[in-house]
Amino acid sequence: MNGAESLVHTLLKCGVDTCFVNPGTSEMHFVAALDRIPGMRSVLCLQENVVTGAADAYYRVTGKPAATLLHCGPGLANGLANLHNARRARSGIVNVVGDQATYHRPLDAPLTADAEGWARPVSTFVRTVLSSNRVGEDAAAAVQAARVPPGGIATLILPSDASWDDGGIVGTPLPVAIAPSIDPHAVRHAARILREKKNVLLLLGGDAVHAASQRLAWRIAAMTGAKLMTELSNARTERGQGSLPLERVPYPADAAVKALAPYDHLILVNAVPPVGFFAYPGKPSRQYKEGAGLHVLSRVEQNAEQALQALVDELGAPPAEIPGNGPKPSIVKGKPTPEDLATTIAAILPEGAVIVDESVSYGRGFFRNTHAAAPHDWLQIMGGAIGAGIPLAVGSAIGLHAKGAGDRRVLALQADGSAMYTVQGLWTQAREKLPVTTVILSNRKYQILIGELASVGANPGPTAMNMLDLGNPDIGWVKLAESLGVEAAQADTLEGCADLMAGSFKRPGPFLIELLI
Amino acid sequence: MNGAESLVHTLLKCGVDTCFVNPGTSEMHFVAALDRIPGMRSVLCLQENVVTGAADAYYRVTGKPAATLLHCGPGLANGLANLHNARRARSGIVNVVGDQATYHRPLDAPLTADAEGWARPVSTFVRTVLSSNRVGEDAAAAVQAARVPPGGIATLILPSDASWDDGGIVGTPLPVAIAPSIDPHAVRHAARILREKKNVLLLLGGDAVHAASQRLAWRIAAMTGAKLMTELSNARTERGQGSLPLERVPYPADAAVKALAPYDHLILVNAVPPVGFFAYPGKPSRQYKEGAGLHVLSRVEQNAEQALQALVDELGAPPAEIPGNGPKPSIVKGKPTPEDLATTIAAILPEGAVIVDESVSYGRGFFRNTHAAAPHDWLQIMGGAIGAGIPLAVGSAIGLHAKGAGDRRVLALQADGSAMYTVQGLWTQAREKLPVTTVILSNRKYQILIGELASVGANPGPTAMNMLDLGNPDIGWVKLAESLGVEAAQADTLEGCADLMAGSFKRPGPFLIELLI
Repeated sequence: MNGAESLVHTLLKCGVDTCFVNPGTSEMHFVAALDRIPGMRSVLCLQENVVTGAADAYYRVTGKPAATLLHCGPGLANGLANLHNARRARSGIVNVVGDQATYHRPLDAPLTADAEGWARPVSTFVRTVLSSNRVGEDAAAAVQAARVPPGGIATLILPSDASWDDGGIVGTPLPVAIAPSIDPHAVRHAARILREKKNVLLLLGGDAVHAASQRLAWRIAAMTGAKLMTELSNARTERGQGSLPLERVPYPADAAVKALAPYDHLILVNAVPPVGFFAYPGKPSRQYKEGAGLHVLSRVEQNAEQALQALVDELGAPPAEIPGNGPKPSIVKGKPTPEDLATTIAAILPEGAVIVDESVSYGRGFFRNTHAAAPHDWLQIMGGAIGAGIPLAVGSAIGLHAKGAGDRRVLALQADGSAMYTVQGLWTQAREKLPVTTVILSNRKYQILIGELASVGANPGPTAMNMLDLGNPDIGWVKLAESLGVEAAQADTLEGCADLMAGSFKRPGPFLIELLI
Repeated sequence: MNGAESLVHTLLKCGVDTCFVNPGTSEMHFVAALDRIPGMRSVLCLQENVVTGAADAYYRVTGKPAATLLHCGPGLANGLANLHNARRARSGIVNVVGDQATYHRPLDAPLTADAEGWARPVSTFVRTVLSSNRVGEDAAAAVQAARVPPGGIATLILPSDASWDDGGIVGTPLPVAIAPSIDPHAVRHAARILREKKNVLLLLGGDAVHAASQRLAWRIAAMTGAKLMTELSNARTERGQGSLPLERVPYPADAAVKALAPYDHLILVNAVPPVGFFAYPGKPSRQYKEGAGLHVLSRVEQNAEQALQALVDELGAPPAEIPGNGPKPSIVKGKPTPEDLATTIAAILPEGAVIVDESVSYGRGFFRNTHAAAPHDWLQIMGGAIGAGIPLAVGSAIGLHAKGAGDRRVLALQADGSAMYTVQGLWTQAREKLPVTTVILSNRKYQILIGELASVGANPGPTAMNMLDLGNPDIGWVKLAESLGVEAAQADTLEGCADLMAGSFKRPGPFLIELLI
């Protein structure tokens, strides 16, 4: 057994059975091993940032790490932006990077690069395998590292000779770390704040936005009068009918400060103190009230549901009925507005859908206006590195299939500018016949930047507009999707978009709608 | 004057007047400054690897650095692969990366990342500006660093408050470093080897593949009987009618060893000892004969022409007529083969064209079969990070225009798999109406990897082929190009391709040909 074969066997034995790949020469023995050993679903992506974004979503949807296969330092580099997003999502990924043979590396052949150096800022574990007989144990250690709560990126760099040499030994799966237990002192302290103080906010992040945690948080709020809010960005929020109509800390700096102004105390449940996405001249970086008390109930690596259950118990908070989301709305007709589009989506979204939201500026109100949709999951771009949406949709669909929920639809709400960074992912949607509907919000400009330019006090002149305008030429999204094998159509009204969406939900494969906004 | 304005003024004063941009929020003051201050050509690209690849080619064509504008760590990450290629091309680039405000950075907002850490492996200079009054001097230092021979990537990280704060001071241009002078001992030593030894190869790299150096090298070869060869990859080779029909060290490992086997001595002229692009089991990493003498005439940071002139003088080598390339060939008809396609290109290539070669496996023989074309420049992908071709074509065209040669045509010979990594660059070709003809060599598979898999002793089964096959679905290159604003057509014969190429050479803007091979 060579090293590459021991890698495939070890990954499978450790429960990693999906691999998003963009291989090169130094990975050919791994590819050959995947050929010989059954059990691994290998999904080809035509650019590495699709690989890594897909692996991120796979973890968010399944709770299990997938593997990647990237080609040397530059292949890793191409996938770093979505590894950055995955790090912010705290997703577990076994990130396999092929590299030059150990003895060839010192010769500095053209493709030689500092893969370890590039991996380190996004990884919780970086290891370069030294020889074929170490591949198995190193791979087992990488899987273990990827699963340390809440999840981490474990980068395993695999020199080609460690792959092709004989002497591979299948690694033994290592124990999965359990989340650190809840601190009783933190629970008692939070309970005291809730009993004794006014204007208290429970800020929910990480797993605290899942349904069970929401219900516990609501019991606490109902008993104590505290308010609930989630962080601005959340890896996977469970929501829709039957869940809480939770609001998020807003993105715009002024709105965030205003939303947090009422609160003298923040109890952080797997959340961090809210800070601005960017700084702006004369505006505060910390968005909560100056002098507000910050109280940590649980950290991101702990189990939010356990923490909230302990707090419920400490307070003796009785069961409380979740407030309603109102009736499911009807579709709206006419020219699109963000609110009406959200209402229309809420009207027709199928139960169990996964929404991938990279709608950026146009979609600021989508979340608020879809509370009444059928139950669904909502995935956000977590690190602000645009180009996440199409890959996240790929990984969501593969992840749903892996957990036996392949009939659930993925709806990607996608800004046009951001979509261009990883448009290659549409091809994988077509090849794998993934149940993904993509709505391109086509305004043909970097709208968010035009707003940001105004907010720094400048009105764009022709040179600036030349850098913010995506028209001239307009991107033909229907043709672009079709060129990559995805059927597509254009809409310029809400009813037209609704018809296309509803039609796509009944199809087995992907569909793309260019919505002119 | 704010910091951003001082940056634009400093860059212009230092002779940097072209900026390839993909801006974000933290760069809005720089965008606003570009709006207010005339003189900088700003070229928008829709993904960062297009930005950096274009800047690489701009330097190769003009000998002057361009600036980039990238958005925070993840924006830099998206451009690292072509910065890797640019580093291997030894191109000078002033690589400007916007970042979080200095005081905001410690708060670890979602987009915060280790831009310095990611920049370092590709940069000869990394500096984060500390305040607005330092922007000018730091920018001048970055331009100086980018121009240190042979050229380097100078990464300037610009926190947003350093941009927006007042107090900007225009930096003073710093002296441009001159190349280290030629070592007389090295010249005498090389002359002695050439006089006394047999089986000597002059291996040309870097600037030694430019026309003037070639002529000097030929005088040496003609006098001494030494042979000439260039490195496998060269940033810009001047060739065609009137130049030497130089051969390169071949890419395939066995062919390289065979080509170098006759030589007992290698005289390195701005070249490094040839090593394999990758290692292969049982094959040597060093491709020259074991025990061959390695003699350094000049290093990459020295001036090859000066070194060769000194060697000509030392030897007293008389003027020698350059061997002919034979007559310009005629186009070939019928189904494409690599040799016939190269012959056809040689027949119709307009004088002064720039060929960008990312033809990978199909194009191995293109170079050899185009010696007889009209005089032209040949740009290669230097670091093996695929996805260079379309961006290099963008930067070549912008560079030609900047030096008053905007009527020269760029011909990109582009493998289909590699093209997908940076396909976004076609949009910039359309927007800027660049005179670029792209020939997509459409075989709908990662052909090189199928060969590599065979060369490691494995025949691809269905799982492997699923990772190496780009069909299912086929990429529709004509539609894809059109969706991004580039007119396009398909050809499946050489005469069809020749007609489309010839037609495109008369057009002002870009054109794409999908050649089914």
